[in-house]
Amino acid sequence: MKKQAIGFIDSGVGGLTVVKEAIRQLPNESIYYVGDTARCPYGPRPEEQILAFTWQMTQFLLSKDIKMLVIACNTATAAALEDIKRKLAIPVIGVILPGSRSAIKSTRNNRIGIIGTEGTIKSDQYKKMIHSKDTKSIVTSLACPKFVPLVESNAYNNAIAKKVIAETLRPLKNMNLDTLILGCTHYPLLRPIIQNVMGDKVKLIDSGAETVNEVSTILDYFNLAVDSRDNKETEYKFYTTGSVQMFESIASQWLEIEKATVEHIKLGL
Amino acid sequence: MKKQAIGFIDSGVGGLTVVKEAIRQLPNESIYYVGDTARCPYGPRPEEQILAFTWQMTQFLLSKDIKMLVIACNTATAAALEDIKRKLAIPVIGVILPGSRSAIKSTRNNRIGIIGTEGTIKSDQYKKMIHSKDTKSIVTSLACPKFVPLVESNAYNNAIAKKVIAETLRPLKNMNLDTLILGCTHYPLLRPIIQNVMGDKVKLIDSGAETVNEVSTILDYFNLAVDSRDNKETEYKFYTTGSVQMFESIASQWLEIEKATVEHIKLGL
Repeated sequence: MKKQAIGFIDSGVGGLTVVKEAIRQLPNESIYYVGDTARCPYGPRPEEQILAFTWQMTQFLLSKDIKMLVIACNTATAAALEDIKRKLAIPVIGVILPGSRSAIKSTRNNRIGIIGTEGTIKSDQYKKMIHSKDTKSIVTSLACPKFVPLVESNAYNNAIAKKVIAETLRPLKNMNLDTLILGCTHYPLLRPIIQNVMGDKVKLIDSGAETVNEVSTILDYFNLAVDSRDNKETEYKFYTTGSVQMFESIASQWLEIEKATVEHIKLGL
Repeated sequence: MKKQAIGFIDSGVGGLTVVKEAIRQLPNESIYYVGDTARCPYGPRPEEQILAFTWQMTQFLLSKDIKMLVIACNTATAAALEDIKRKLAIPVIGVILPGSRSAIKSTRNNRIGIIGTEGTIKSDQYKKMIHSKDTKSIVTSLACPKFVPLVESNAYNNAIAKKVIAETLRPLKNMNLDTLILGCTHYPLLRPIIQNVMGDKVKLIDSGAETVNEVSTILDYFNLAVDSRDNKETEYKFYTTGSVQMFESIASQWLEIEKATVEHIKLGL
């Protein structure tokens, strides 16, 4: 059981920001990843469809015998975490709770902002989660539907990206936020631009990186972590429903590995 | 279930350093605490006796219907966590794993020191835990049997304490450590002196504070956290097998609460 991989799923390449942190914090663990690039973005889709797609990714990874599932996508977490967690025998965690917890710890003036896809923002789960732990904070949400397509098209660092991000975030500029949750795992790839637009005083919370702490705690709690003294080779496998080349390019760049091994798969047939 | 208290147990007042962090990070949770002050220190005792004493504290709190148990004592964690976790239906966590994980994250030069009681150091659990996750780090352990009595006698900030601590830690001074685990929950009360002796460049890891992050994750994972929107009053109750007055004095001072409500109990009769 311990030697099996941890499964990560996302609507596209965004969950790689979580994987990057997992490789750093959990160097003994093998990772299997599914990015449903062909049907990305999930944000504007109806909730039932997101639930169905998320189950398809989950079933694919279950067939690869994973020991734990990380829903490394805020939109899918909002739509599907509760259902999947209830129905699977292996541990399942999402990205919304760790991000919420970290924002509450970070804020000093009790003004927290959240940016995410339409699906995530419409679900209102960040606000609900934060208020379940902390009734003092004023929480402001903003949907940023243009951000995921920027990342998925590998255009996340050019002049157009900068302009789109500055315009989108304008409504948050004068709200006196001291903490902003990047409530979509794609957004850390836009982090330098977002930080620049929001200013240095706003602390950005990377929901994915926070999630890896939780993955580590849960692995240990259930005695599922690989023991480094076992000298096991780790294995990283990436599956995409879209272009292998595009995925490889973003994954190699972002994960700083020489060449990510990416395989094309079909889901939901 | 959610409204029940979280139970904390320790050989004496040390676990209050964990409680202080729990009050900060989990303000909606009620806390019941047992300090076995009359039989403190646990460090020099045989393992079977520590196991038996830890079970007695656990049984007492189970009779108060706690929803989760935190073994807020490194010596008791080393001797009893595995056994108690296996036998109880509620979640049980200790302080060694969170401290180990945090030290691995912190170190840059892979030289980690651990200070603790004789029992904790003899068990070698920190070293084993760290090496199960990270074979690169060189781990140096030192038993500090004089530290707990300093704290329990409320003499943790005087000239004698400073002298004892400087002498005890001398063997660690030239080992080029960049991270030192305070592997006993009493030690954060000695933190300023320890930091002063070790120098500013050594990062001190408070195993108890790290544990509270884990408490929060596990509460959420099992859906046991109190919802702040329920407007429930939190309740803090402290039980000691020793002097109520001494316990009250340290608890009020350390937790910065006006007057801790402390009750005397007898265990193991």
